[in-house]
Amino acid sequence: MKIVVIGASGTVGRAVADELGRGDTHEIVRVGRTRGDYQVDITDTDSVSALFEKIGRVDAIVSATGSLFFGPVSKMTAADFNVGLQDKLLGQIRLALVGQHYLNDGGSITLTTGILADEPIAQGANATAVNAGIEGFVRAAAFELERGIRINVVSPTVLTESLDVFGSFFAGFESVPAARAAMAYRRSVEGIQSGRVYRVGY
Amino acid sequence: MKIVVIGASGTVGRAVADELGRGDTHEIVRVGRTRGDYQVDITDTDSVSALFEKIGRVDAIVSATGSLFFGPVSKMTAADFNVGLQDKLLGQIRLALVGQHYLNDGGSITLTTGILADEPIAQGANATAVNAGIEGFVRAAAFELERGIRINVVSPTVLTESLDVFGSFFAGFESVPAARAAMAYRRSVEGIQSGRVYRVGY
Repeated sequence: MKIVVIGASGTVGRAVADELGRGDTHEIVRVGRTRGDYQVDITDTDSVSALFEKIGRVDAIVSATGSLFFGPVSKMTAADFNVGLQDKLLGQIRLALVGQHYLNDGGSITLTTGILADEPIAQGANATAVNAGIEGFVRAAAFELERGIRINVVSPTVLTESLDVFGSFFAGFESVPAARAAMAYRRSVEGIQSGRVYRVGY
Repeated sequence: MKIVVIGASGTVGRAVADELGRGDTHEIVRVGRTRGDYQVDITDTDSVSALFEKIGRVDAIVSATGSLFFGPVSKMTAADFNVGLQDKLLGQIRLALVGQHYLNDGGSITLTTGILADEPIAQGANATAVNAGIEGFVRAAAFELERGIRINVVSPTVLTESLDVFGSFFAGFESVPAARAAMAYRRSVEGIQSGRVYRVGY
């Protein structure tokens, strides 16, 4: 399969590209904001369209990218909240909406959320809402996508590699190595299911 | 209690204002886009701030408003999708984020989603995502709100009053009269729970 991994220089994306690239079964196209084989701004429809025009038809789209706003509800503004809506939520949905037209029959789309969809933490209201919204889109879109195209989402707990930076937000949470999260992306890409949320490590 | 109902000229909002206004226990302030005691544009932070400055402190904020985009995933654009994000999702969350500062201690916020959060229908991917996102925000914000302020969401099935217009989208769904949905808003406003999704009729 030809698989495009967006966010391929991030902790999850790199692990996914490595996992799916193992053994030369698949051709992996690595895409990042500033690095990788191609660059894309997921908040810009022209940029996303241009990306797929350059890459051409693919068999799987994996997105492991998107920014959120973190901060207390008591000080949060609508503009703060819109950061996560425009980036992680609409950015990934834009990849799906544009990308569906560049997928071969029977192809797949795999997006990324995270444990905060189900387990709120302090300062994480934007993350919980954004992740839950993405999962809602995936549940609904799975029934509508044409030509046998599937869509799923992977929701990992905090990554072991991220504990140095984010660990204090996740007191008492178990972590998983990115390599273990990457296995769920392989399940999504090579499996038959659609509309699934693959929770990893929780 | 002094209760502000935003969307008070809509089918749900009118029923909520009528239900909570019964018996003169509460003072109801009716707010609409173009009708009611006050007008507001929920997509505009200045408009929402001006609304609460005019009304002053309240004991409960009820939102039964917000637009969505309906259309097939195969033709949907990111701009289409952003309609629901900016209006029903961020619009209601803006009411909560601004409104929290105008609530008396122990006050409440009640937002509105709908059955599509849980039950996707054709052309409803935006609705499912938006409703799920709002419910995510409510689940998380409930743990952070200060001064005993609570937040819940009411998710009704299709309204009996709306079957003429929307019935064909909801084949085989049971409907509820708006007056029955309104009871869940009373549970939220007068009860003790927080972070709840009150599903009505499903």
